[in-house]
Amino acid sequence: MTSRFSRRSLLGGGAAAAGAIGAFAVGRATDSGAPAGAAARTSGERAASYAFRGTHQAGIVTPAQDRLHFAAFDVTTDDRAALVELLQQWTDAAERMTRGEPAGPSGAVEGPVDLPPDDTGEAYGLPASGLTITFGFGPSLFRTDDGVDRFGLADRQPAALRTLPHFPADVLDPARSYGDLCVQACADDPQVAVHAIRNLARIGFGTVSVRWSQLGFGRTSSTSVDQTTPRNLFGFKDGTMNLKAEEPEEVDAHVWVAAEDDPAAGWLAGGSYLVARRFAMGIEVWDRQPLGDQEAFVGRTKDSGAPLSGGDEFTAPDFDMPGSGGTTIIAEDAHVRLVHPDFNGGVKMLRRGYNFVDGSNALGGLDAGLFFLAFVRDPDTHFIPIQTKMAAGDALMEYLKVNGSALFAVPPGIGEGEYVGQALFA
Amino acid sequence: MTSRFSRRSLLGGGAAAAGAIGAFAVGRATDSGAPAGAAARTSGERAASYAFRGTHQAGIVTPAQDRLHFAAFDVTTDDRAALVELLQQWTDAAERMTRGEPAGPSGAVEGPVDLPPDDTGEAYGLPASGLTITFGFGPSLFRTDDGVDRFGLADRQPAALRTLPHFPADVLDPARSYGDLCVQACADDPQVAVHAIRNLARIGFGTVSVRWSQLGFGRTSSTSVDQTTPRNLFGFKDGTMNLKAEEPEEVDAHVWVAAEDDPAAGWLAGGSYLVARRFAMGIEVWDRQPLGDQEAFVGRTKDSGAPLSGGDEFTAPDFDMPGSGGTTIIAEDAHVRLVHPDFNGGVKMLRRGYNFVDGSNALGGLDAGLFFLAFVRDPDTHFIPIQTKMAAGDALMEYLKVNGSALFAVPPGIGEGEYVGQALFA
Repeated sequence: MTSRFSRRSLLGGGAAAAGAIGAFAVGRATDSGAPAGAAARTSGERAASYAFRGTHQAGIVTPAQDRLHFAAFDVTTDDRAALVELLQQWTDAAERMTRGEPAGPSGAVEGPVDLPPDDTGEAYGLPASGLTITFGFGPSLFRTDDGVDRFGLADRQPAALRTLPHFPADVLDPARSYGDLCVQACADDPQVAVHAIRNLARIGFGTVSVRWSQLGFGRTSSTSVDQTTPRNLFGFKDGTMNLKAEEPEEVDAHVWVAAEDDPAAGWLAGGSYLVARRFAMGIEVWDRQPLGDQEAFVGRTKDSGAPLSGGDEFTAPDFDMPGSGGTTIIAEDAHVRLVHPDFNGGVKMLRRGYNFVDGSNALGGLDAGLFFLAFVRDPDTHFIPIQTKMAAGDALMEYLKVNGSALFAVPPGIGEGEYVGQALFA
Repeated sequence: MTSRFSRRSLLGGGAAAAGAIGAFAVGRATDSGAPAGAAARTSGERAASYAFRGTHQAGIVTPAQDRLHFAAFDVTTDDRAALVELLQQWTDAAERMTRGEPAGPSGAVEGPVDLPPDDTGEAYGLPASGLTITFGFGPSLFRTDDGVDRFGLADRQPAALRTLPHFPADVLDPARSYGDLCVQACADDPQVAVHAIRNLARIGFGTVSVRWSQLGFGRTSSTSVDQTTPRNLFGFKDGTMNLKAEEPEEVDAHVWVAAEDDPAAGWLAGGSYLVARRFAMGIEVWDRQPLGDQEAFVGRTKDSGAPLSGGDEFTAPDFDMPGSGGTTIIAEDAHVRLVHPDFNGGVKMLRRGYNFVDGSNALGGLDAGLFFLAFVRDPDTHFIPIQTKMAAGDALMEYLKVNGSALFAVPPGIGEGEYVGQALFA
């Protein structure tokens, strides 16, 4: 037994020492995917990481990382104090993990042998990998469908935080929809994103259960001008028009809730609303459409992403340019036209979606698509009208089916010594 | 319309020109995750890639990449010629994609507007990302359960290529098991691995359908001495004892089928058998076990992966070292003891498994675990005995449930001008 205990006594101070290293290197992590030696996970030296505390939560204007694990939780207790304690514990663990440290102070491997470790270990040795953890509160946290005020929060429910309406293409699976709480974990290594959700679920055992979760890869939206626009599983660039972090006035106008927006929900000022929608793509049918038709449905070329009216990816579309047969070159039902701010009262979203493939569907095809995530200042103005229009008239909808849907209020950033959503419970 | 056609006429020669660039850079790709400019996918300049043709198929001794998309297919035709044609088309497309090129000659964006593209486009602009594509044939390709010789191949069915027996911990889901054909796509970018499977499924439309597919990340086994041993979702290093590419005599002895192994199946010489097993982990229960118990179940420390008898990760375990209470320090039911070559006739496997998280299970937990992939010379000697022993007596089995299972014969490498499995059909 000598070797086991000597290892622990030698290394017992490691976690505490590492906790003192608080400097953040803000920037993109490299994604080598390979473990970087055990030291990396406790010291964070090799990894880029993002500050957990600040004016706004991380993971919104943060340059979109490459991998996602998103989870919605149901709260299984009626005890408000237990809920608050969970949020305090989650805040602590999330801050540690975004630094590249274990989820708890004793860590994955150095704690007492007669207790479960306070970190599950699969990210031990991996760098922080640009991890961000973003929390949200669903409508059902405030009131049940029957109107029960579960935690004394009903009078603080934001007016816009309601179950989204049924849209024409919705075939919602309740097991992929809704939720009292949500956590978005983004990182440049899937093992790090999965580790974050898994440890928050572990900490929440007895207080919450995972209602649904979704992995994603190959983000579909760039949130920084430094990022190349990635492609979705239709094969098209996706997110060309996305709001960028480098446009603070636009972000203020379209993403952050202002104090005056909702007098009953002052706690949400500096926060946002998060729309999550699981768009299953009929990729087998899509793949049999001619290239010209695919481009007509989108209204952009598949190559550069330029509008069909010409130019390059970032050229403004000319919606009036005549095509053949008395129509416009960008069709009336083209996706780019339907969702363009010019035809939607100027509203913009900050999208942060990811591609997914979740095995196979019952038809011998791939269960693949786009897990749409968007942060907006007000879903009533910035999401519901545009989604209604798209569901009714967008040429792409023939190849899309929405089987998961949820809306969350995302509290503002977490100050020093605070826990996430503290103002809601104050 | 000018801009659309001028783009095509300018770039029309691109795919053909890129096809002439045949040099392979063998080595690990970097995984930036970000698109590297459209040129990368057609020229392959930025990416490490692996040779598709050779003595053995790629993706076996290839240093394990970080991401996996694995698919099993059912053949939906009775026409042998159609099956052969599919294998020819798959060979051509796989070779293209491993070079970082589109799946077909006209590509994702440059083909005629009135035809579907011969590449789906989501990997356009991404480097080859170390992609390997490995093909296998299931027992049901040779004979149905009723003994029907579907394609005139029954007399060439390898004796060891049978449905795996039922093991004690198996609770198999037929929708996650078996298959006539399999394709393992590994890459350092999930979008590239997904793109490969998706395009092979597209090409096979009408001839095959996807029976099941599995994504994986954070490989659990290193196949090269240059790779750090990664961690599974139990939080332990996994694959310490794995066969390594740098041990050619061991690989010859344990992985490659020799010509004399099975006179009826000479076509398999230089190939291997691929065992695929989906181990669902009870991670929520595991996470509540004390650290000392977790280490006792595995027989190794969670930190360095050293055997509990001492030393470092690669120190040979001392299975006789006495512990307390008259037992050995490495328990009788410890995983490391049960699967060790010393207690299994010296057999070794080349494991190439991946971690997975596939959303949630019905119990409010994560559907997470280990997608076990192993290449062996003979499943009757190298897999079935050890799995039988593990299922019956391994302390870890309390936390594992196998709900997917399949066995495939993996034909040898593909020579110039050949298609995969050509010797089987000759």
